[in-house]
Amino acid sequence: MDHSIQLVPNNTLITSTPEEGRQLAVKMARLIIKITQPDAEKREKMRANYSEDPGLIIATGQTVATEFATIAAANNYWR
Amino acid sequence: MDHSIQLVPNNTLITSTPEEGRQLAVKMARLIIKITQPDAEKREKMRANYSEDPGLIIATGQTVATEFATIAAANNYWR
Amino acid sequence: MDHSIQLVPNNTLITSTPEEGRQLAVKMARLIIKITQPDAEKREKMRANYSEDPGLIIATGQTVATEFATIAAANNYWR
Amino acid sequence: MDHSIQLVPNNTLITSTPEEGRQLAVKMARLIIKITQPDAEKREKMRANYSEDPGLIIATGQTVATEFATIAAANNYWR
Amino acid sequence: MDHSIQLVPNNTLITSTPEEGRQLAVKMARLIIKITQPDAEKREKMRANYSEDPGLIIATGQTVATEFATIAAANNYWR
Amino acid sequence: MDHSIQLVPNNTLITSTPEEGRQLAVKMARLIIKITQPDAEKREKMRANYSEDPGLIIATGQTVATEFATIAAANNYWR
Repeated sequence: MDHSIQLVPNNTLITSTPEEGRQLAVKMARLIIKITQPDAEKREKMRANYSEDPGLIIATGQTVATEFATIAAANNYWR
Repeated sequence: MDHSIQLVPNNTLITSTPEEGRQLAVKMARLIIKITQPDAEKREKMRANYSEDPGLIIATGQTVATEFATIAAANNYWR
Repeated sequence: MDHSIQLVPNNTLITSTPEEGRQLAVKMARLIIKITQPDAEKREKMRANYSEDPGLIIATGQTVATEFATIAAANNYWR
Repeated sequence: MDHSIQLVPNNTLITSTPEEGRQLAVKMARLIIKITQPDAEKREKMRANYSEDPGLIIATGQTVATEFATIAAANNYWR
Repeated sequence: MDHSIQLVPNNTLITSTPEEGRQLAVKMARLIIKITQPDAEKREKMRANYSEDPGLIIATGQTVATEFATIAAANNYWR
Repeated sequence: MDHSIQLVPNNTLITSTPEEGRQLAVKMARLIIKITQPDAEKREKMRANYSEDPGLIIATGQTVATEFATIAAANNYWR
């Protein structure tokens, strides 16, 4: 694993607001893609394809939903 | 990430009723699709295709179910 | 989103029994399909196809399982 | 929905042992398949196909895992 | 369902260590495959194919992750 | 199962930081792939293919998200 890539931005799951928690979920999902395919050019090429493929976009949404569930629990749902 | 798109409407997971919580789950799932494919025209074209594809509709339902689980927990299940 | 469709029947996750909770999970999963494809004729056509496709039936079962997890927690598992 | 099919055998999530809980998870997953495709002959035909398809078998396993998570929580993990 | 196959080894989710919990998750995932396809020869043939198919291997990993979540909660995360 | 492969590095889910927890989630997801396909050469060949396949990369991300949810709960979210 490439330890130079930080997988959890700021090394915390705690955020001020749900909006920031959601942005963190999106970032954490993308960082896993980055360490799985570290070649930026190849990632860019894949991205061009997948952003027009509804199945892959929905699968991305499922991942974000799972990451967000964890972040929301960590923040006690910002109640 | 396009920070001009708000990912959590009203920046809260708290809703008055389960019905509103469910609508929030649907909206949050759709907003992830929006930031993944920000081009409205391409989204419209994809939508036309995927709304007749049962596999993609079911996958959308799975995402909504996961988002709703988080929102329901945040609201202590509106008990 | 078509707000004339109620996404949570009776606007509550609370049910008397596990059986009723399971029926609610099935209904909630189907209502998401309904708002994603509001055209009844197209839904009927899709249903004819997907009810003979084991992959889609299993995927439907996964969605119901996730919805039911939320409903069961809401009802404190009817203990 | 065909209300003559009972979706939760014995109408309870409580079981004496983990083994019985696991059997209940399998049964509940199968009963959703039954109400989605109520025609027994068609189900039998599909089953012949899918039991030799590793992707579908693994997907079935994912559904059982989700159902079991709910049943295990309901039983406080039989601790 | 073939009741001669035990679905939960030792009929408990409690293990001494995380490592044993992880092994239990793998075993429980495999036992569901066994009751879905009870024919050992067919299972062996499928296994030969799927162990070289990255999509199926990743799907297996998703199932193990879900089983392990339940087992880890049962053991209060071995804290 | 090949018991010579340790499935949970250091045999604990407890980590000092979210970043270390995330790295553990990635490792645990990869170790399941390793015991499913123990042949290093075949794994290398698969990896070359799948790291350019967006669907498989996203599926890997979903697995990591599920593993991380468990690890984060084990660490009480590093609050």
